[in-house]
Amino acid sequence: MLIPTITAIADADLAGKLDHAINHKTKPLGSLGMLEPLARQVGLIQQTIEPQLRLPAVLVFAADHGVTDEGISAYPQSVTWQMVENFLANGAAINVFARQNDCGLYIVDAGVKHDFGARENLLDFKQGPGTRNFAQEPAMTMQQCENAMLVGMKLADTLTGDVLGFGEMGIGNTTSAAALMHKLTGIPVAQCVGAGTGLSEDGVRHKQQVIEAAVALHASANEPLDVLATFGGFEIAMMAGAMLQAAAMRKVLLIDGFIVTSALLVAARLQPAILDYCVFSHCSDESGHRLLLAHLLTHLKARPLLQLDLRLGEGTGAVLALPLLHAAVNFLREMATFDSAQVSEKSAD
Amino acid sequence: MLIPTITAIADADLAGKLDHAINHKTKPLGSLGMLEPLARQVGLIQQTIEPQLRLPAVLVFAADHGVTDEGISAYPQSVTWQMVENFLANGAAINVFARQNDCGLYIVDAGVKHDFGARENLLDFKQGPGTRNFAQEPAMTMQQCENAMLVGMKLADTLTGDVLGFGEMGIGNTTSAAALMHKLTGIPVAQCVGAGTGLSEDGVRHKQQVIEAAVALHASANEPLDVLATFGGFEIAMMAGAMLQAAAMRKVLLIDGFIVTSALLVAARLQPAILDYCVFSHCSDESGHRLLLAHLLTHLKARPLLQLDLRLGEGTGAVLALPLLHAAVNFLREMATFDSAQVSEKSAD
Repeated sequence: MLIPTITAIADADLAGKLDHAINHKTKPLGSLGMLEPLARQVGLIQQTIEPQLRLPAVLVFAADHGVTDEGISAYPQSVTWQMVENFLANGAAINVFARQNDCGLYIVDAGVKHDFGARENLLDFKQGPGTRNFAQEPAMTMQQCENAMLVGMKLADTLTGDVLGFGEMGIGNTTSAAALMHKLTGIPVAQCVGAGTGLSEDGVRHKQQVIEAAVALHASANEPLDVLATFGGFEIAMMAGAMLQAAAMRKVLLIDGFIVTSALLVAARLQPAILDYCVFSHCSDESGHRLLLAHLLTHLKARPLLQLDLRLGEGTGAVLALPLLHAAVNFLREMATFDSAQVSEKSAD
Repeated sequence: MLIPTITAIADADLAGKLDHAINHKTKPLGSLGMLEPLARQVGLIQQTIEPQLRLPAVLVFAADHGVTDEGISAYPQSVTWQMVENFLANGAAINVFARQNDCGLYIVDAGVKHDFGARENLLDFKQGPGTRNFAQEPAMTMQQCENAMLVGMKLADTLTGDVLGFGEMGIGNTTSAAALMHKLTGIPVAQCVGAGTGLSEDGVRHKQQVIEAAVALHASANEPLDVLATFGGFEIAMMAGAMLQAAAMRKVLLIDGFIVTSALLVAARLQPAILDYCVFSHCSDESGHRLLLAHLLTHLKARPLLQLDLRLGEGTGAVLALPLLHAAVNFLREMATFDSAQVSEKSAD
């Protein structure tokens, strides 16, 4: 399949101009901390010293996972569609936070095992009634996986905002994400597995055993797309496609928690420069997420903007971090400089 | 002087109701991380399970410090009034962030060494043309210190919002804050002193020596108000007064960086229950702040909401954390419950 080409954002000339602009604002050098490299990054993504973030939106991709047959989640599979209904009725955390932060919200049925019928505000891109159980057979065929990615790319292509947040809903999808993480990073399964929505210690151990057995069963799947088709989910594949297209369009990608980061991991194996476009919104409380971020961010100096012990998904971390992203761009666009405000610069000391 | 009485927020019955409300929202138990105890805290402060944060505002108290004569800042003293002008012209970081977050902004001249004349949007509560140099004599008389606190109390009394952020501007005020911290906590001066707006290593060492000599000079000042009068500043005293009154009125106090926290330290020595009303917005990059927070928070399980390496002051951290405070209250008020949304609860696993 054709993967969109993503260009690194490095531009020494523009970076110099951005640094100059940031350093001459009326504040001690570096005193806005992490907001300063963030402003620089968005400037480089948008190729301007006056970046802006029009029409931010968060995409929540929902799908079901056949691997729930193995009893790897604290919640029944039906919670996926019930939570989609909750999104449509504006009752979930992501609804509350998106509304608060003037962030558009798109709910995508990527493959939920439920017939919603035609519904306003639900993007019906259903690829099937959930994936197959990867403990027994590949979750998706390669054709299904590529289709899901293509749909994600097309969706991103239609969106006009400057920043896209990514979120997900899918009972069982931390199991998929942990398997993807293990296969694509080599980090031992035990370190990739966490409690998800609230497993007991025994439950976590069982989840780990399910993944280890599946990894042994599908030993030949090693290329990123093979790994994605075998262990992934419709929502993860669609997200990976949307991320690739959005980065190719030079949008800012606001990355949420563990599952979203696992989709990014796949995308980054295909187009490593995608990481230049990513803002990591938070480090979730799901065990694998910290390690996965550390793995992805070795070449970046970035760290996630928030550490709030979130482990909800839905894109909640992304939307909660949005005001900080706005703040970074706004200080760069709107603050006075020492010259314009006639404020004295630092003395020699 | 009469210090407002502040009541602890503990209320077992209401706390139980808040926990029940939080735990039945459509999300895995505890999955909103730090936002959950935050929602509970605001509920207890406002004595309701439906808290709200109407008319948030940040107060920025500005004043000059005689101790700048000792060469303890990287910036000349004139930057205090120049930055006040910048605030009035909407050019500073706090203006940008307050505007972005629909937060009211009050600029208070608590004692800047500059004649601003009558100015719209500047609250003229000037207590004098900066404090005296505490390396030679007490910064304030007890009368001045108490007056400054009283003015702060009266100001807070007039404000109608549910949440007040606190910020400051005053060249030299990290030196005051470090001295207050040392005197009121016993933590060695070396650990209370940082680079402020950007001192060199030599500069930091000199600042430390100035404080140590002053501490020796004023060895008899040990009671909280004595310490405040001797080493504090007009903006710090006024802030402490405003905080005490605001907490007595059961407002949420949004605490910014090192200097604001030093004012809170004084207030907490007078009325320890004030800490129940405080939300700590960020841990600043100024060395002493982390230690001071650890000292104040020993009895709380809270940690600051943001860790962004900010070290600007002005209340910027407070306003940047405001959306998280809104998010905490909004999820409690607006999210559906498992019952209302007909979402299945967790299975036994």
